Amino acid sequence: MAVDVPVALLGYGNVGSAVARLLAEGADDIERATGHRLRLVRALVRDPSRERAHLLGQDVLTTDFAAIRDDPQIAVVAEVMGGLEPTGDYVLQLLRAGKPVVSANKQLIARRGAELFATASDQGVQLRFEASVCAAIPVIKVLRESLVVTNVHRVLGIVNGTTNFILSQMEQGAEYADALAEAQRLGFAEADPTEDVSGADAAAKMAILATVAFGSRTTLDDVEFEGIERVTQEHVRVAGEMEMTVRLVGSAALVDGKLDVRVQPSLVDRHHPLATVEGPFNAVMLQGDAIREITLEGPGAGGLETASAVVADMISIIGTTGTGFLQNDACWRELERLPRGDLRSPYYLRVEVADEPGVLAHIAQRLAEHDVSIARLVQHQRDNGATLHVVTHEARAGSIEAALGQIAHLPETQSPPDALPVISSRGVTGMGWT
Amino acid sequence: MAVDVPVALLGYGNVGSAVARLLAEGADDIERATGHRLRLVRALVRDPSRERAHLLGQDVLTTDFAAIRDDPQIAVVAEVMGGLEPTGDYVLQLLRAGKPVVSANKQLIARRGAELFATASDQGVQLRFEASVCAAIPVIKVLRESLVVTNVHRVLGIVNGTTNFILSQMEQGAEYADALAEAQRLGFAEADPTEDVSGADAAAKMAILATVAFGSRTTLDDVEFEGIERVTQEHVRVAGEMEMTVRLVGSAALVDGKLDVRVQPSLVDRHHPLATVEGPFNAVMLQGDAIREITLEGPGAGGLETASAVVADMISIIGTTGTGFLQNDACWRELERLPRGDLRSPYYLRVEVADEPGVLAHIAQRLAEHDVSIARLVQHQRDNGATLHVVTHEARAGSIEAALGQIAHLPETQSPPDALPVISSRGVTGMGWT
Repeated sequence: MAVDVPVALLGYGNVGSAVARLLAEGADDIERATGHRLRLVRALVRDPSRERAHLLGQDVLTTDFAAIRDDPQIAVVAEVMGGLEPTGDYVLQLLRAGKPVVSANKQLIARRGAELFATASDQGVQLRFEASVCAAIPVIKVLRESLVVTNVHRVLGIVNGTTNFILSQMEQGAEYADALAEAQRLGFAEADPTEDVSGADAAAKMAILATVAFGSRTTLDDVEFEGIERVTQEHVRVAGEMEMTVRLVGSAALVDGKLDVRVQPSLVDRHHPLATVEGPFNAVMLQGDAIREITLEGPGAGGLETASAVVADMISIIGTTGTGFLQNDACWRELERLPRGDLRSPYYLRVEVADEPGVLAHIAQRLAEHDVSIARLVQHQRDNGATLHVVTHEARAGSIEAALGQIAHLPETQSPPDALPVISSRGVTGMGWT
Repeated sequence: MAVDVPVALLGYGNVGSAVARLLAEGADDIERATGHRLRLVRALVRDPSRERAHLLGQDVLTTDFAAIRDDPQIAVVAEVMGGLEPTGDYVLQLLRAGKPVVSANKQLIARRGAELFATASDQGVQLRFEASVCAAIPVIKVLRESLVVTNVHRVLGIVNGTTNFILSQMEQGAEYADALAEAQRLGFAEADPTEDVSGADAAAKMAILATVAFGSRTTLDDVEFEGIERVTQEHVRVAGEMEMTVRLVGSAALVDGKLDVRVQPSLVDRHHPLATVEGPFNAVMLQGDAIREITLEGPGAGGLETASAVVADMISIIGTTGTGFLQNDACWRELERLPRGDLRSPYYLRVEVADEPGVLAHIAQRLAEHDVSIARLVQHQRDNGATLHVVTHEARAGSIEAALGQIAHLPETQSPPDALPVISSRGVTGMGWT
């Protein structure tokens, strides 16, 4: 027996109208899964006179937030208006009024997640936010519901489609500027692409993923990030020669009980699942004790894709109301940060040197003094010298930095050396990748 | 406030003891997610005197099924005993007694799923079975909870780790027999590998995935399957030359409202997400209207990995009890089967011919007569002739078969021609792969 469930939206733009469409077209499917019919009864907008797609009736639109907050019939509210204010205040008011909320707002969750989670927990209502990270890829649900007992200790992600598209184009031979222009032409990059190419967008998503994976408040300020602006065609070409590919990789890791979250352009072994994520797609790899690793890949953006995640969250809330499920505070502990130099990884190093006898020995010695050992080396001749491309074994980030500082001051070194982390693969083994 | 929730197991072998371990070690995490403490109070075994790992107390073991079925305290039962009888009967009795059940039993769900789903639905209790397909990869949960409104129309999967390991070894140059022996040595293949290498195991999993994705009863008998026994080193080598790789791919597709489920060795474009699934790993790609496609990859077997999925299902049941969520019958419609010749795909064809003028024209003409057009052609000389390697554009499976039947009878054709489907990729585009 179907029970009619009124729901509301904050915002009715691209994502909001797609939510309305999916709720209408999927009503039978939703009833089959939950026993309930979700009906959109109100949507908060600034100007109700603008024409809107997929509305059941014009009277659904309202400019009065209180008409949603104070309506006891409304069982779930989805926030698809974006922005930080007044959005954050609205979400807080809804939670305090005992209403479950779905949010697609990456910036809001990344900046004020801890406060919102605590409020939801205090009120015993759910706050779900699948759409805030990687659109339709259900990584939050999988982390919170499928991997409860698996002690996830590392999350690796390609969580920004714009930069992945640009890097994929560069892999085909394009220069950075041309690849960016192509991304803008196709609508994958904004006119001002800073948010994406600087790594800031990826950092916000990694903050959310780290919070959920490790239960410790992680905001944008906790994430060290770097974008793809300094990635050159040479990086991509040399990576290819070494059977790797350049990707902007977010990493959230629990190391000896301490948390490290960062976003960096990285060289990824071509046998690693993240290496084959192409174009504007996203992927997240979850590594944990009982599962080894699970990788989820899919479109990381798009109105309909985002709406699909919003509706999935609404369905999950309706399907778990009154059970105590996921009404805990997602930030249940406070983890210490790992000192930034302490994270260990293999690294790719690029050093331009004079082509003289003994140069390699000098460089290898500086590396060895910092406990950095060389796994692979490729040397390319140039007109007035040579470029060394080195892949190290696993080393402390701080040791790499210190060694490069010394190498920069060697008389044979011709320009500031360069380092990128390497995501390696053990290839075809029983243990999968590490 | 934690509420103590007694749970029980049918079976206490490799998976069962891992479930007990995860329940014990993850008790705090489970309480945080659900508000409840799950406590293993009973486990059905044949011989309680055998030593068992991870037990809270020896009195947990019982040989009396009724002691589990009739205990009103037990809130969830996980079936990890395997086999069809008496397991199927036990599961039915539990559901009829109003107990939610988790099953890790691929054969049981693939053969008697429809009957079990209907019983669960009639009783208003949940039957979850994540662990029956691809161990820890949460594909069932994602299909049933995250993709409710997305109209999934195609599921592509590498769902057998043994064959994927063997094909990965062959890609490194091994012959089939040696790769199989290596798989057996590492414990990835049984002493009698038939179930895996024949495609039967993959077919059972695809039957379950098709049932869940399309809501229409699909049993093992509905799946046309072929294994990897006839895959040769030449297939793998030629695939590599054409930038593809050989994988055993399960496909479940909804075509014009009709259902097609099959498992076949296939040539997969190396840019396709399934091409990079290596070793014993599994991956499933879900294609749907609102999501384009989502791919989930991870370990497809293992005691702890399987137990992780079983515990996740127990947690999900506890987290959704009394809500109406997923208490519907997973088989809610009866879809017609697509006539087997009607599925369309690009194909790889291999034909051994005499090296005479006009041979290619004859073959191309036979293909054209059946509306099969050639996309790519590679010709390899042999001592007494040539081998043609052809990739076609998309064509009806029936047309390919008919054309090959005629080509087999051409005087220039030296041996029975061979066909494998091709999973292509559009490469780096805004629309992703098709």
